[in-house]
Amino acid sequence: MSSADERPLAVGIDIGGTKTAAGLVTMRGEVRRRAEVPTPAADGAEAVLATAARLAAELVDGSADPVSAIGIGAAGVIDPRRRLVLSATDTLPGWSGMRVGDRVETALGLPVAVDNDVRAHAVGEARFGAGRGLSSALVIAAGTGVGGALVLDGHPQQGATGIAGHFGHIPSVEAQGLPCTCGRSGHLEVIASGPAVLAAYRRAGGGGEAGDTRAVFELAEGGDPAALAAIRTAGRALGGAIGGLVNALDPEVVIVTGGLSHTSALWWGPLRDGFGEEAIDLVRSCPLTPAALGADAAIIGAAALAFDLVAERMRSGIPSSAGSADRGILPDPRSRNLGGSA
Amino acid sequence: MSSADERPLAVGIDIGGTKTAAGLVTMRGEVRRRAEVPTPAADGAEAVLATAARLAAELVDGSADPVSAIGIGAAGVIDPRRRLVLSATDTLPGWSGMRVGDRVETALGLPVAVDNDVRAHAVGEARFGAGRGLSSALVIAAGTGVGGALVLDGHPQQGATGIAGHFGHIPSVEAQGLPCTCGRSGHLEVIASGPAVLAAYRRAGGGGEAGDTRAVFELAEGGDPAALAAIRTAGRALGGAIGGLVNALDPEVVIVTGGLSHTSALWWGPLRDGFGEEAIDLVRSCPLTPAALGADAAIIGAAALAFDLVAERMRSGIPSSAGSADRGILPDPRSRNLGGSA
Repeated sequence: MSSADERPLAVGIDIGGTKTAAGLVTMRGEVRRRAEVPTPAADGAEAVLATAARLAAELVDGSADPVSAIGIGAAGVIDPRRRLVLSATDTLPGWSGMRVGDRVETALGLPVAVDNDVRAHAVGEARFGAGRGLSSALVIAAGTGVGGALVLDGHPQQGATGIAGHFGHIPSVEAQGLPCTCGRSGHLEVIASGPAVLAAYRRAGGGGEAGDTRAVFELAEGGDPAALAAIRTAGRALGGAIGGLVNALDPEVVIVTGGLSHTSALWWGPLRDGFGEEAIDLVRSCPLTPAALGADAAIIGAAALAFDLVAERMRSGIPSSAGSADRGILPDPRSRNLGGSA
Repeated sequence: MSSADERPLAVGIDIGGTKTAAGLVTMRGEVRRRAEVPTPAADGAEAVLATAARLAAELVDGSADPVSAIGIGAAGVIDPRRRLVLSATDTLPGWSGMRVGDRVETALGLPVAVDNDVRAHAVGEARFGAGRGLSSALVIAAGTGVGGALVLDGHPQQGATGIAGHFGHIPSVEAQGLPCTCGRSGHLEVIASGPAVLAAYRRAGGGGEAGDTRAVFELAEGGDPAALAAIRTAGRALGGAIGGLVNALDPEVVIVTGGLSHTSALWWGPLRDGFGEEAIDLVRSCPLTPAALGADAAIIGAAALAFDLVAERMRSGIPSSAGSADRGILPDPRSRNLGGSA
């Protein structure tokens, strides 16, 4: 074992609508060990929480080195100060109102930091991925929805009520007249998200069969004009909105992530064009770059938030944990083998 | 004299295109003594700098209490780290490239903080005006142009290259097709600034005579439909853009300042409507409030930045000033009486 192995570790957990992933992470953002299970969304919020806590417990118990804290990036609108879920979509029934931080901290006896999954992803990328070494990053996630985070000196901005980063709800010229999920209309998300690409293709009465967003990209690769137009509009709209945000916020880098960022030049080209059309000369050289950490970004970022919490509690003189665990919320903490030995 | 009079003071200076104002300011944001002279813009940038330095010197020399530092809020695009002017408009010929911080610090032998006038104004309002006691404020200035600053924990965000706050260059649905001062088109500033209101009135072929923006408001008060429409569009466009920014940034308050904020419900009504149409439910209760400090905001904010610089240099162990002054840049430091005695 090298001396690096004796550094403290944190567990980072990424609770999504379909899977829950966790890892043992070093302070330098290296993932030591990783585990992943399906999120039992259909079984309700208590099962979701117990699954996440069980994954964490097994990683803690199996670690040869001390684990300082647990960080959770969770789907839904999260209040990171109160560590609870403010609202959630139908993908996680009953999740709204869950006091994730208090519950997992009581169960495991370790400090628990909680934020939304997008912000956890963003802080991972900003500190250890595409933003490594830079002072600020605007992270834009375009997939099922459009969101992200402004990360300043490694810290994701949470906003006064904890909901900063709703970049999908910026007015967009390209989205005018289209109803938004938020009840308003004309917002970026309804023209620039993955589902928006599919919807635009269908509105245009495209000739091919497209069952999902991926199929629209396949049709576009084959030259389908309606598919090409839907993708071009989505990329251009997002790029234009990013240009306006960069004019307003002047980040050192824009990191583009989410499902659409893994597509092709058919989307990245219009994205860069849209950015160039709106960014003023003073910030036009700000790089737009894809995320670098892949699926581990949220785990790494959640662990970073956990280390931050420990440091903050030390500064404040708050004991870093309850010191005892009550695993009562875990239905059967030993029932599942994670596929590795301690 | 009360004990409050023995607290350290800073000089805050507001260098605008037409006038230069300065004040002796306490750490609590109280202006003790104030002076103002015309900015000698036509005489060139050296004369502008000398005038500001002379105002500062007279306030320092005339103060019974110690002056710790000088803060300058200056027109133009300012790099606050290098304390120099990156670019300026024709209102201050030769101002671009001026090393304001180094020059005034050498002349007066006191630490000098420099930022742009809008950010100085914003930090004054956020700490001591309409944002007093709050953790964050989005300050929007709508007048000759549209700009502002995001102030977090009392600190105006400068951005990676020092130019954050160009809110006038966010894409606006209402501005589509209109050329912007930045060389792009369709940006908020060309529909929502004061000159934009006049331009919209003229484009609409309004029946009355309108020589300036104020005249458009007078015509609107009298029921002129083209004037009413120009003002309504400007307010709605700005309110909508603010709604998008609040969705993205979640500030605790939005402080609206600048010339248009001093108009009437003809503008504030559409502004609030535009905000309400775009803000998502989670942030709709964020207050939009007019600035509270009037013309002194930039002086107070510049002084606050000066106190911050002293604190920062103390933390870093940097001597807080050169310790000696070389008033060589001041043509005649004693030639002007500021109208008060020490």
